[in-house]
Amino acid sequence: MTHAPLDPVDLTAKLIRCASVTPDEGGALVLLEQVLSEAGFACTRVDRGGVANLFARWGDKGANRSFGFNGHTDVVPVGDEAAWSVPPFGAVEKDGQLWGRGATDMKSGVAAFVAAAVDMVQEAPPEGAIILTITGDEEGDAVDGTTALLDWMQREGERMTACLVGEPTCPTHMGEMIKIGRRGSLSAWITLTGVQGHSAYPHRAVNPVPAMARLVDRLASHELDTGTAHFDPSTLAVVTIDTGNPTTNVIPAQCRATVNIRFNDAHSSQSLIGWMQSELDRIAEETGVTAAMEVKVSGESFLTPPGELSEMVTKAVEAETGVRPELSTSGGTSDARFVKDHCPVVEFGLVGKTMHQVDERVEVAQIRQLKAIYARILKDYFA
Amino acid sequence: MTHAPLDPVDLTAKLIRCASVTPDEGGALVLLEQVLSEAGFACTRVDRGGVANLFARWGDKGANRSFGFNGHTDVVPVGDEAAWSVPPFGAVEKDGQLWGRGATDMKSGVAAFVAAAVDMVQEAPPEGAIILTITGDEEGDAVDGTTALLDWMQREGERMTACLVGEPTCPTHMGEMIKIGRRGSLSAWITLTGVQGHSAYPHRAVNPVPAMARLVDRLASHELDTGTAHFDPSTLAVVTIDTGNPTTNVIPAQCRATVNIRFNDAHSSQSLIGWMQSELDRIAEETGVTAAMEVKVSGESFLTPPGELSEMVTKAVEAETGVRPELSTSGGTSDARFVKDHCPVVEFGLVGKTMHQVDERVEVAQIRQLKAIYARILKDYFA
Repeated sequence: MTHAPLDPVDLTAKLIRCASVTPDEGGALVLLEQVLSEAGFACTRVDRGGVANLFARWGDKGANRSFGFNGHTDVVPVGDEAAWSVPPFGAVEKDGQLWGRGATDMKSGVAAFVAAAVDMVQEAPPEGAIILTITGDEEGDAVDGTTALLDWMQREGERMTACLVGEPTCPTHMGEMIKIGRRGSLSAWITLTGVQGHSAYPHRAVNPVPAMARLVDRLASHELDTGTAHFDPSTLAVVTIDTGNPTTNVIPAQCRATVNIRFNDAHSSQSLIGWMQSELDRIAEETGVTAAMEVKVSGESFLTPPGELSEMVTKAVEAETGVRPELSTSGGTSDARFVKDHCPVVEFGLVGKTMHQVDERVEVAQIRQLKAIYARILKDYFA
Repeated sequence: MTHAPLDPVDLTAKLIRCASVTPDEGGALVLLEQVLSEAGFACTRVDRGGVANLFARWGDKGANRSFGFNGHTDVVPVGDEAAWSVPPFGAVEKDGQLWGRGATDMKSGVAAFVAAAVDMVQEAPPEGAIILTITGDEEGDAVDGTTALLDWMQREGERMTACLVGEPTCPTHMGEMIKIGRRGSLSAWITLTGVQGHSAYPHRAVNPVPAMARLVDRLASHELDTGTAHFDPSTLAVVTIDTGNPTTNVIPAQCRATVNIRFNDAHSSQSLIGWMQSELDRIAEETGVTAAMEVKVSGESFLTPPGELSEMVTKAVEAETGVRPELSTSGGTSDARFVKDHCPVVEFGLVGKTMHQVDERVEVAQIRQLKAIYARILKDYFA
């Protein structure tokens, strides 16, 4: 029995036509389960909290070499549909590009690794296992997405020995960047409460506004670090201060601010929260305000140190594109922050320039190139 | 021909029944013009910009001694009418108090000086002139109120040699405070504009939020002065900082703050604006933001140094109440800030505790006491 190779462009187009805006499954995972089942993958839907997730394994559970791909089929909303040149779920192909929401982020990436995996198991079955974890919630809270898949794998004794997340990683041209880690991210919502009063008698009030100003100045002026071996310096951005007092003759009772920190491996969320809390305590003591803080940690920083995995991906990228990729830890968060607790993980995908934008689109040639890179990685891994 | 003394309580009640919420005349000035004309005052309506104002003079224009009273008949809105115990324009008398909007601020004050003036010119006509300037806009913008009256007087050659503003000046009990000046007041609306960006890449943006925090900290930390001979220290209150950024991953382009300064005679509005502008220039240079400021000056500081006028008012208050009043420059602004360019001015009135509040009310006995004090001042001035 011979098999025609699976066309990743065709599969991307089919996925774009599934309107899988988070948290809607939109038919995308149903389609992938069908394709993978037909190719001999053992598929399990690992749905949790209203989120659809798909686990697929070819080969034996617990194999010594078990390569994983991770990705997502959910997409961000289309935004202003009238501003699109094409129907956002139409998967129109023109000018050598495939257009539609999710074209780069990241239905093309999922299609490329599914196609590479299906071809391999049908043409040159590896000694080991291939595991695909595909979630329906990466763009949302991501609480019941890849985490649900990894929790389930833990319970079931499923394991990967290495994993590649297929998110778009290249800023402007194909092959230029592999991500081997990410900075952590946390946000803090700070509220200072004083005592309301009349502007003409500030000594009878406790004004939270200048207290917040001083606190924010201290937080924003503090140099968190100057960067580490594999990371840029940590950054702190105070993104808003708000009071909402429309008058000039009233000193308000409350002032709020929001801080976002992107931190490298010189810190943990706990060490940063401790530092901020000590600054809150200090301003409270100095000014008499009451200081409160709510914190949401999006993810700790993580790193898969340069080594076997990143070297293998580098070689495959260079072989297929002629470009030697940079190993980077830049950018926001991705589901790699969950996978890193499970096994070594790197991220590589195509150019993400139009992701989340109106007229999101991908070069058709890039999808085929990405499949070739993923196929080469699989071949090298199991060689 | 004999005259019954004019009852200031009855006149206050009639004025309260005129719903003269700024800028509505509400019949209040029409009533006063009638009362004063009948008593022999030459009355002129000096309306400007939709505001009604009344000028009344007994005696000769340009007299060597010409005592003035200044006040207003307009009132602030009733607020939550359902929260009032009585109809706010009903002038209900109960428990020895007269209830209604304007009862303390300052229809009772106007009634008291009108009654004192009418009685004097009818019972013991003075050698000189009595001038009453009563405006319909003190609580509003005050652009076409007492200022319009003073402008008109200037053109007409009308003059006062001393003036008493009948605003409530006593914090808690009758007779305790005369105001011989006021601090100045100005408000500044500051806008810092930077360059929007992603929170993960703050070096590619220019964040106006920490720049505003540092600017506000500097402004609020600066000691303007430690007080002067007759004034408390100047104060600066930053009453609001606002950005309105609901996200955590976007650095906003703009941040706004509002500053209110109450300043004594160590400063002028121009010196303070110059100082703030230099701080704006400094933060712009340090951070790369563009800094803009709009300023509204409500009034410069002013002082009628303790002397003949304040001593005369002090003696009258002490004689009628047994309380020796303090000479103060505390509080917000009043129309005395306009009168001070015309002649020496002091302010004395009753207890202002319920002014601007629901269930505003005044002790009936205080109105009669206030009339007696004003009558004694007139008698002493022309003695």
